[in-house]
Amino acid sequence: MLTLYTWTTPNGRKIPIMLEELGLPYEIKTVNLGKDEQFSPAFLAISPNNKIPALVDHGAEGGPLSIFESAAILVYLADKTGKLLPAAGPARYKVLEWLSWQIGGLGPILGQVGFFEIHSPEKSALASKRFLEESDRLLGVLDKQLSQHTYVAGDDYSIADIACYPWVAVIDDALKPALGARLAGKPHVRRWMDLLAARPAVQRGMALPKTTD
Amino acid sequence: MLTLYTWTTPNGRKIPIMLEELGLPYEIKTVNLGKDEQFSPAFLAISPNNKIPALVDHGAEGGPLSIFESAAILVYLADKTGKLLPAAGPARYKVLEWLSWQIGGLGPILGQVGFFEIHSPEKSALASKRFLEESDRLLGVLDKQLSQHTYVAGDDYSIADIACYPWVAVIDDALKPALGARLAGKPHVRRWMDLLAARPAVQRGMALPKTTD
Repeated sequence: MLTLYTWTTPNGRKIPIMLEELGLPYEIKTVNLGKDEQFSPAFLAISPNNKIPALVDHGAEGGPLSIFESAAILVYLADKTGKLLPAAGPARYKVLEWLSWQIGGLGPILGQVGFFEIHSPEKSALASKRFLEESDRLLGVLDKQLSQHTYVAGDDYSIADIACYPWVAVIDDALKPALGARLAGKPHVRRWMDLLAARPAVQRGMALPKTTD
Repeated sequence: MLTLYTWTTPNGRKIPIMLEELGLPYEIKTVNLGKDEQFSPAFLAISPNNKIPALVDHGAEGGPLSIFESAAILVYLADKTGKLLPAAGPARYKVLEWLSWQIGGLGPILGQVGFFEIHSPEKSALASKRFLEESDRLLGVLDKQLSQHTYVAGDDYSIADIACYPWVAVIDDALKPALGARLAGKPHVRRWMDLLAARPAVQRGMALPKTTD
């Protein structure tokens, strides 16, 4: 059994999508970021950076294994099942480079857009310019890649797509006022978004975690 | 033979350290960011996100292989040699989670401190507060981890240390005016910095790439 600690954010939805794609049995424990539940001692023991998602594999060889950071969890689950990440060779490293690009670039930058454009009541023209322009550059890089390949890391669907999708999807949602017009100029990204959105596992994962808060 | 495209930045020094640790033969091609050389068509063919570092392994199985993103390159070189990243098991994922923490958190946030505190002539109190506080939080997470373990991902030196070191070292250098006082309150990080700084391969890697620009 797998226990996933997560919440209704782009990073928080990557692992539900992955687990739905893999068809593995799992349970979700919500970590309500609005109530600061990520700072509870029990959660910090699993995720010392006080961030979701985190995963506990109760059936791992050698005893229960906890992992934090979405990229590490995606690689773990892919290697555990032999799916969505080639086991070796050039195709494996194409997936890892685009996965790294998402967690080191697209995610952090769109996160700053969320703060400076949407959540913060105070504004900064300097920060707005920086993060909106960098978002547009990153979406342009993704658009060019998707003009040449069906999926983010090449011809096959992979954990690089799963990592990128919830972040790009948020531009159709919470970040639309800030970046919707820039996304409209990226037709290959839109083609890929439609392809991902048609996958039942992506639809199910994007609706998780269910919460009444 | 390996060709490394890099420059004198924290991300740019990770791979020289790694290659010096491994003792692999390699050549460096400098990509002068001050002269916008990262936008040349030849470099973009290797690194479509126009960032250093990028690596070409001319002797890879199946033909020359190019990889961008420092984390993907570190994992590639570790797997190629069987060094500095366990091949399987819980210890492998401890390294991958802290590697992910560096590329998704510590690096992007310290990069913003570099921009808002040092490079930008214009300032933003909102951005300063956000990125200095988050830097301090991240250094606190690292300090706690290093209070319990010799190295970033546990008892053994790994690519997680190599990824973190050039970024923390920059706080003793260019970012000292912004974050030096906060680093002074993190004794376990300092103990680890001294340990890393004593390694000859780290010393050699931190002095690369050599440039007359």
